[in-house]
Amino acid sequence: MPISRKIDGYLANASWIRKLFEEGNRMRAEGGGPVYDFSIGNPELEPPALFKETLTRLAADASGGMHRYMSNVGYDETRAAVAGSLSSDYGLPFVADQVIMTVGAGGAINTALKALLDPGEEVVVSVPYFVEYRFYIDNHQGVMVAAPMRRSFDLDPDAIEAKITELTRIVLINNPHNPTGVVYPQETLDRLGEMLRRVSAGRDRPIFLIDDAPYRKLVYDIPRCTNPFSAYEHTLMATSHSKDLGLPGERIGFLAVSPRCMGWQRVAGALAFTNRTLGYVNAPALMQRVVAHLQDVTIDLGWYRRKRDLLYKELTRMGYRMPYPGGAFYIFPEAPGGDDIAFMQKLKDMRVLVVPGTGFGMRGHFRVSYCMRDEVIEGALPAFEQAIRG
Amino acid sequence: MPISRKIDGYLANASWIRKLFEEGNRMRAEGGGPVYDFSIGNPELEPPALFKETLTRLAADASGGMHRYMSNVGYDETRAAVAGSLSSDYGLPFVADQVIMTVGAGGAINTALKALLDPGEEVVVSVPYFVEYRFYIDNHQGVMVAAPMRRSFDLDPDAIEAKITELTRIVLINNPHNPTGVVYPQETLDRLGEMLRRVSAGRDRPIFLIDDAPYRKLVYDIPRCTNPFSAYEHTLMATSHSKDLGLPGERIGFLAVSPRCMGWQRVAGALAFTNRTLGYVNAPALMQRVVAHLQDVTIDLGWYRRKRDLLYKELTRMGYRMPYPGGAFYIFPEAPGGDDIAFMQKLKDMRVLVVPGTGFGMRGHFRVSYCMRDEVIEGALPAFEQAIRG
Repeated sequence: MPISRKIDGYLANASWIRKLFEEGNRMRAEGGGPVYDFSIGNPELEPPALFKETLTRLAADASGGMHRYMSNVGYDETRAAVAGSLSSDYGLPFVADQVIMTVGAGGAINTALKALLDPGEEVVVSVPYFVEYRFYIDNHQGVMVAAPMRRSFDLDPDAIEAKITELTRIVLINNPHNPTGVVYPQETLDRLGEMLRRVSAGRDRPIFLIDDAPYRKLVYDIPRCTNPFSAYEHTLMATSHSKDLGLPGERIGFLAVSPRCMGWQRVAGALAFTNRTLGYVNAPALMQRVVAHLQDVTIDLGWYRRKRDLLYKELTRMGYRMPYPGGAFYIFPEAPGGDDIAFMQKLKDMRVLVVPGTGFGMRGHFRVSYCMRDEVIEGALPAFEQAIRG
Repeated sequence: MPISRKIDGYLANASWIRKLFEEGNRMRAEGGGPVYDFSIGNPELEPPALFKETLTRLAADASGGMHRYMSNVGYDETRAAVAGSLSSDYGLPFVADQVIMTVGAGGAINTALKALLDPGEEVVVSVPYFVEYRFYIDNHQGVMVAAPMRRSFDLDPDAIEAKITELTRIVLINNPHNPTGVVYPQETLDRLGEMLRRVSAGRDRPIFLIDDAPYRKLVYDIPRCTNPFSAYEHTLMATSHSKDLGLPGERIGFLAVSPRCMGWQRVAGALAFTNRTLGYVNAPALMQRVVAHLQDVTIDLGWYRRKRDLLYKELTRMGYRMPYPGGAFYIFPEAPGGDDIAFMQKLKDMRVLVVPGTGFGMRGHFRVSYCMRDEVIEGALPAFEQAIRG
């Protein structure tokens, strides 16, 4: 066994998403008809036209110096554009120095965890959770502590408070939420903020709220996602343009430190350092230049809303029960019979791939990612119906 | 203090390179004439023309799906192109599955360390060393162990062997070498490989050799850099196109696992996993597509060789003593008087910025990075001469 024992142990328990991705590839390679693959969140929608225009223009720009190192935090112009957009989205006066450009949201979360955690300190997440959180927290010797959500799949500030100890440094939320598609109400965020303010009082270091928000622009019933910055002052947002501009392969994201965070300069300085020393160094240069022009542009939301409406209506009609999916591109129905792995297998036998809730720390549900063409969704509806009938 | 205590401690001891970068910016902002900044390795040379052509063509490509997620290891086409080029460079039959595309060499080194190290295991480096190694190794709870080089600044396999313990997992080398510009002779690599083979015999996990090789195509006296893969079978190369194509801001690099490595499939599988779970996810998509067409192209080496020749000749004539800089774009002279920090200050007073050897774990020398325009080098020569005279 040439590799790390720890990594070897992880590999023996590979993620469900990965297993299903490989299963889908195997099924496609074998032929035998279409595979309805709802397992991964890899949007089939192309980026907005302005993205392509801007990219083409900047790629041809011969002014020189386009691909050199810049400051580890990114280009000033990009950070100023992001700050301007955040100011208008969240009603607070962000400045460029509160923005650190990152290698996607994955880079952003790791950069933030490293900057805030000392070994053995705790990060509270709510169940179900994005499967990578477990690895990200462990990367920095943090300890993941899981709190339940309410039955409605709203965040539960009381349940989170019950998990807080002397070692708690961070509460990590994800809004809109993967795997449920739930958008947390503003009142819930405000209650979470009040709780964090109360328990942080008297500590030499406040508990930080990290909002993992790559789906923040993908909300279908309200004009703008709910606001973590107005709810609590010690808030970092970790996000990317993977979903709102349809660029997941390009790894372009950012961290934003709340202007209301006491000592935000020190936090931003630590983030610049950890972004560098974790080996990210800086967010990709050309994409930084491109997204500076795209802060107020979003991928076609109607494309997603149509699929959300269709799938939510049809699955509800068939008898599936699920939390209301107000955003992102996921729904999280209960598995009929209660065994999510058995139900996933049943769907797989009908060539429909979904991810069991077990992969997100919660049995009894399954995740459907609806970021694919209408034909895939429409083609799979008979199988969903048949699976719940018998 | 809102941030991690550990990171706070690091920030209090910020790197010399960073301090000098900020000092240079301050001096430039204050005016008062040119600043001769040899502190950082941010090449002023533009990428090859074929890069710009390829980038412009692919940016305008409207075929769809250009910016989506791909496999965590990267596009098959890119990996096959890299494998083909490695096969011809190193005389071994690399295949695509032995190549993992990464977020630069920084991402590559971290991905490799995470895949191989268990907490508390040791990584032997040679002094002087690239300053980031200390952080990279600590990121994964490894322990950095420093071995001396020979007086000629060649690697010293005997000194490395003297540092090997039961806990040693990795020997990390950098060829061509930062900060000295030395290219290790093949004979030295072969002796290192023999030693590693001997001490690995009987272990259940062999010691791995990681060659950090971002300067591998920047060699000025031989047609091709010396070969770590022929020297030792358990070898990983961590590299990037930051220097050979002049793209440091774009974060595009790769890891290559030796075809001779026993169980290379398992190592490659672990690297795919750690590249994902460290939050890199994948190397930037568009740049992966671009570099697939540029594996046999290198930035204008004559541009660098001319500067190397000028600076080496002139500094030698002035009386500086330094290891012979056969590659990269660094030279590492002895500080006259022996105090590298005092000598750095003396040069700074003459508006010439260099990095003290202390920043690389070795007092008594200073690093000159010569990747800038001829005028900067020529303009600074009088100050170098004056500094050694008095």
